[in-house]
Amino acid sequence: MVRKEIRFRPIGRVHSPFKAREDIDPLRNVRPNGLAKVEGELEIFKPYAAGLKDIDGFSHLIVIFAFHRSQKVKLLVKPPRETRRRGVFSTRSPHRPNPIGLTIVRLLGRRKNILQVSGMDMLDETPILDIKPYTPRDSKRRLKHGWLEERSKKKKKN
Amino acid sequence: MVRKEIRFRPIGRVHSPFKAREDIDPLRNVRPNGLAKVEGELEIFKPYAAGLKDIDGFSHLIVIFAFHRSQKVKLLVKPPRETRRRGVFSTRSPHRPNPIGLTIVRLLGRRKNILQVSGMDMLDETPILDIKPYTPRDSKRRLKHGWLEERSKKKKKN
Repeated sequence: MVRKEIRFRPIGRVHSPFKAREDIDPLRNVRPNGLAKVEGELEIFKPYAAGLKDIDGFSHLIVIFAFHRSQKVKLLVKPPRETRRRGVFSTRSPHRPNPIGLTIVRLLGRRKNILQVSGMDMLDETPILDIKPYTPRDSKRRLKHGWLEERSKKKKKN
Repeated sequence: MVRKEIRFRPIGRVHSPFKAREDIDPLRNVRPNGLAKVEGELEIFKPYAAGLKDIDGFSHLIVIFAFHRSQKVKLLVKPPRETRRRGVFSTRSPHRPNPIGLTIVRLLGRRKNILQVSGMDMLDETPILDIKPYTPRDSKRRLKHGWLEERSKKKKKN
């Protein structure tokens, strides 16, 4: 029962300066400020636009999207510039059993059904599945971040 | 093209003390510590368990799941104890165009394909779609959180 297929339909699409995967910094998850300055737009399709009411009051949004260019599933992945293979659930790789992506963006403004955001790291034309407000409860402190941590330390030394 | 259906399959399921929706604190998103102490387990189905390698190094995980009990879609929702209707994308309501849920949990331990976590706010038997590491980049500061903010202020006054 619990294993049956679940179907979603895009509620919108991304407009991004990144037209190809190679355009996106592969180390963005290691850097706290990632691609903070990269701007783009989230277009919510008209039938869903009424759901954007009240969203303007939030500084940050969680964007859940489909990795629409991902065509393979790997349980072990070699992150960019890493030598060891990591379990896919300890990475943000697109090659996941369910190719769902997640990015937290800063909301800069809104024009009807278009949200202007920064922190863009999605490909142009990415299908958007959901948008959620980022709440105080989502902001965690005193993190341990495993292999990414070793990576950051190594970076600092160099 | 971008609007075509996207299909996912659960990679696991939740074991939670919450058997019914009424068991879950409806104000959890307003409170920074939400349900921080509630413990539960994330069972990753055996075929995907290899993807859990290296996950033990992370203190927090992002769980993406299906709101499997949600049967209606609303673009405007009345959050618990709110008088006004809010746009669904500015809430964490389960009644979304795509009933996808997201919770950030603390990882307490792991026993093979079972992750022990706290911060549980999911229903028992919830289908898990994805697990991602929570990285420094996901921890945002200086938040504005719109109507939830008015709510917190009101709470403090009382």
